[in-house]
Amino acid sequence: MGETTKPDAVTVREVGPRDGLQMSRSVMPTAAKLAWIAAMHRAGVAEMDVASFVPAATMPQMADATPLVQAVRQTLPALHVVALAPNLRGAQNAARAGAQTIIVPISASEAHSRSNVRRSRDDQVAEFRRIVEWARATERPPVLEAGISTAFGCSLQGAVPERDVVELSAALAEAGADVVALADTLGYATPTQVRRLVRSVSAELGPVRFGNLHFHDTLGTGLVNVLAGLEAGVRGFDAALGGLGGCPFAPGSVGNINTEDLVYLLESEGFATGIDLAALIDARTALRAGLPDEALSGRLATAGIPRTYQPARAAA
Amino acid sequence: MGETTKPDAVTVREVGPRDGLQMSRSVMPTAAKLAWIAAMHRAGVAEMDVASFVPAATMPQMADATPLVQAVRQTLPALHVVALAPNLRGAQNAARAGAQTIIVPISASEAHSRSNVRRSRDDQVAEFRRIVEWARATERPPVLEAGISTAFGCSLQGAVPERDVVELSAALAEAGADVVALADTLGYATPTQVRRLVRSVSAELGPVRFGNLHFHDTLGTGLVNVLAGLEAGVRGFDAALGGLGGCPFAPGSVGNINTEDLVYLLESEGFATGIDLAALIDARTALRAGLPDEALSGRLATAGIPRTYQPARAAA
Repeated sequence: MGETTKPDAVTVREVGPRDGLQMSRSVMPTAAKLAWIAAMHRAGVAEMDVASFVPAATMPQMADATPLVQAVRQTLPALHVVALAPNLRGAQNAARAGAQTIIVPISASEAHSRSNVRRSRDDQVAEFRRIVEWARATERPPVLEAGISTAFGCSLQGAVPERDVVELSAALAEAGADVVALADTLGYATPTQVRRLVRSVSAELGPVRFGNLHFHDTLGTGLVNVLAGLEAGVRGFDAALGGLGGCPFAPGSVGNINTEDLVYLLESEGFATGIDLAALIDARTALRAGLPDEALSGRLATAGIPRTYQPARAAA
Repeated sequence: MGETTKPDAVTVREVGPRDGLQMSRSVMPTAAKLAWIAAMHRAGVAEMDVASFVPAATMPQMADATPLVQAVRQTLPALHVVALAPNLRGAQNAARAGAQTIIVPISASEAHSRSNVRRSRDDQVAEFRRIVEWARATERPPVLEAGISTAFGCSLQGAVPERDVVELSAALAEAGADVVALADTLGYATPTQVRRLVRSVSAELGPVRFGNLHFHDTLGTGLVNVLAGLEAGVRGFDAALGGLGGCPFAPGSVGNINTEDLVYLLESEGFATGIDLAALIDARTALRAGLPDEALSGRLATAGIPRTYQPARAAA
């Protein structure tokens, strides 16, 4: 566990421009998104979820997905660009725009699946299979990441049996996922559950990579679950600047874990994230400029960086 | 660590009426304090920090310490009443009023010591020794708890060397403390530091009890540090309803960890607290009635108890 065996580097994937904006009351202009994304990239964020390729009628905040991804690829060539797509058409559009990793959401909860992608869980696995087939036939296939939402519980269904998540992970690996990731869409995960599920899903995946853990901080347990994930050997986490976010199709879902607070915790624990904390906090200014009506969370941004802060040495 | 060896029960000590109120802008009337304390006790809180025995001129919020402790002892006989006293006179007043445990704060940081109790660290250890001598000469001595503030870092001094905390713990045990407790006054603690300091201080104490860990959530790490404490074997934590609190003599200090969120985490992890979560959340109404201008935090109170919540079975 933790202390004795920890390696040096942890990946923090910023998901604010995607998960963070999908609950926002107003639509952030494309230029403002670009300025915000650039500010976070300057702070050292190397991987970012920038858009969802969904119908603009469903989610007007994401209507600019294609031009946004194109612009990000052109202006920030070192940034690894991730996009979400719930179906084949979305995945094709995301790849065409230049997304390097495509996340396809598959709910562990049957009720959330029908609410989120309007398909049964099995039908969504079949859709994922079609996306894999299409990708394998393209010249430069994107990384395909199966994102298992409601992996730790659901507000519609209630508890989600661990066996369902393990079986779904196996099915998605078998279907050809490059990465399988677990998302706590509602924020219901507990540390013991995190350690257990990480171990049982990792054991199932074989050569498929275990992806980032994706936590929401609905119940104050977001960073607690990060610690549990670290202890179980996970070295990648999603987070949103200012703690934005939530799933509009999962009642009660609130913000993602806060990127600034996550980076502070990781660096203080000796994990190099490559992110400069002061510059990351400064990036909130660009976020606020583009989305003036949204309340931001953030303990660190409120308190300021403490004088005892010691970032981890950068990984060699 | 954690999972394999955890026993069933954890003590949650509510410190809102003491630590929580000492930063409040307005003074809570005694009757309102009593109603709030009673509501939390009804929810199952068995141990509570109810007052500081300090000069009323320094801290007008605590001017009613004597009548409050007397009233609590009379009306809530099953509640274990804790009070803070920075010196012999305060300890005598607290005992006379009926406090069953008296916490004497001793700063690990020399700078915080001079700011908080207007004495050097060594002089405060000597004061603690006088309190022990007086207590041993009384008929029914209170439990004497040495509370080491700034044990994990200080906004005035910066880092606090681990060796200083271990040596101070040893000195306080030698001076006759019944309990020695570590307080992260500023919220600077990190999980690795918590595990390490818990182990080294416990090893030093001998027959003296290792007290509650006392965390503040300045940087979002409050509950993360609770998990680290649990892993290191600690089974008692301080917290304040609504996340109130902070030390007026430690610049940058903000609220205690939130009692509701702590109870949710502990119970979900299988630790019985004896506290009913819904009733605890209801007690916020009594707090708000007595302190209408204060902002309360609380993820759980905002989100509501999730349908997946499963309290631990009560300890036999």
